[in-house]
Amino acid sequence: MMSNEGNKVGTYEFVVEPFHTDLTGQLTMGVLGNHLLNCAGFHAEDRGFGMASLHEHHYTWVLSRLAVEVFEQPKAYERFSIQTWVENVYRLFTDRDFAVLNAEGRPVGYARSIWAMIDLDTRKPADLLTLHGGSITDYICGKECPIEKPGRIKVTNGEVAGEHQVRYSDIDINGHVNSIKYIEHILDLFPMELLRDQGIRRFEMAYVAESYYGDMLTFTREEIRPGEYDIEVKKNHAEVVVRSKVLFNASASVEEAGDKKEE
Amino acid sequence: MMSNEGNKVGTYEFVVEPFHTDLTGQLTMGVLGNHLLNCAGFHAEDRGFGMASLHEHHYTWVLSRLAVEVFEQPKAYERFSIQTWVENVYRLFTDRDFAVLNAEGRPVGYARSIWAMIDLDTRKPADLLTLHGGSITDYICGKECPIEKPGRIKVTNGEVAGEHQVRYSDIDINGHVNSIKYIEHILDLFPMELLRDQGIRRFEMAYVAESYYGDMLTFTREEIRPGEYDIEVKKNHAEVVVRSKVLFNASASVEEAGDKKEE
Repeated sequence: MMSNEGNKVGTYEFVVEPFHTDLTGQLTMGVLGNHLLNCAGFHAEDRGFGMASLHEHHYTWVLSRLAVEVFEQPKAYERFSIQTWVENVYRLFTDRDFAVLNAEGRPVGYARSIWAMIDLDTRKPADLLTLHGGSITDYICGKECPIEKPGRIKVTNGEVAGEHQVRYSDIDINGHVNSIKYIEHILDLFPMELLRDQGIRRFEMAYVAESYYGDMLTFTREEIRPGEYDIEVKKNHAEVVVRSKVLFNASASVEEAGDKKEE
Repeated sequence: MMSNEGNKVGTYEFVVEPFHTDLTGQLTMGVLGNHLLNCAGFHAEDRGFGMASLHEHHYTWVLSRLAVEVFEQPKAYERFSIQTWVENVYRLFTDRDFAVLNAEGRPVGYARSIWAMIDLDTRKPADLLTLHGGSITDYICGKECPIEKPGRIKVTNGEVAGEHQVRYSDIDINGHVNSIKYIEHILDLFPMELLRDQGIRRFEMAYVAESYYGDMLTFTREEIRPGEYDIEVKKNHAEVVVRSKVLFNASASVEEAGDKKEE
């Protein structure tokens, strides 16, 4: 961590709970995703622009995109930490990055996220550059996040890989399906053997709309190239709710990913 | 806590994570159940008879029964703590109790659990009274747990209320369906309105057998009296895996529960 950037980066410690691992004994992508969202919340709250402060002012953060790459997922009982910082602030979006560090403090993964802020009354996006006199920009930090930005996900020739009617356990305090639950449902589309033997190289989510109790979610999946899947989730056979990309370790594009330049 | 019983009771602090609450903003029963199991693990490990110590000796704990009553479920961002202690040790079972305390240290719920220990090679139960020279009995504690013991659950005239094929996210590091996932699937059988408006007075689980990836689980539910449901979960239309009782706050038996004597 750069010393003069110290207060810009938040660091949060965790231990992998035994029942937060999958059958390989590694932290699940869903639990990691939940930790990332919590860290975003802690970091923002500590600096005066978190959910609790914003609710008083009738605004809230909305997660728009998430991309996660973990090359060494922490295992049961292992300590790890998550760092998070603000990479950029635009008028309607902010880029927030994450690093996952193992018990020795070595990075074992990174994540990128894009957030908007909405007015709770009008549900319209708010101007981040005028919020609190633009003070959120004071926290912009140059720390490196060496993974690609979330890309475009487009399902054109997919096939229906699963259906799920939204249940009580899918719904969070906001009354809509929890961001993390989509991740679990999407990974459940794949055979256990694939998840166990190959592991996930990169995982992307694009949150487009909200879904609610009783909605029927349809998951359409397309194999873009071997080991790389784009998924589109629609509610009630109409509106797109979520798009996702899952890249397995043995996928064709893993080798070239290191060389790829950001668009 | 009785002072001379101090080391017998383990106390563990938590904060309710925002995405660990349901649509009412209260901690979900599944997450609470996970915390209870973790506390059992911490408490046992700290005293030399936890999973990690036992694995070295080729034994492991198996949860047999769980009963939970929470009258004031902690809310998002609230601090709470869980106390746990050993109530009794028999040759093949041990009773472990829990108290849930709110931020002020006042009890807001209790739980009871029954555990067996099995030999990992033979899958046969082990004799708890000879384990480590019977030292587990040193931790038997007289602290009160003022809720009923797990009772008999018997579904005789139920109807099929749901089906679920076991997926990747259901499976934990042991290769079988995680104890907590059954709780989520069982609560998902009920209409959201019932869970939201009434809340759960008491919840019981009896773990009978294990289920695995790909198994088809069938949930048969019987309303024993208004607001009180017994559920039986079978795998592949044959073997019983789990039985459960859910008692809602407005159920007929809540009023009389206070007077009931333990069998």
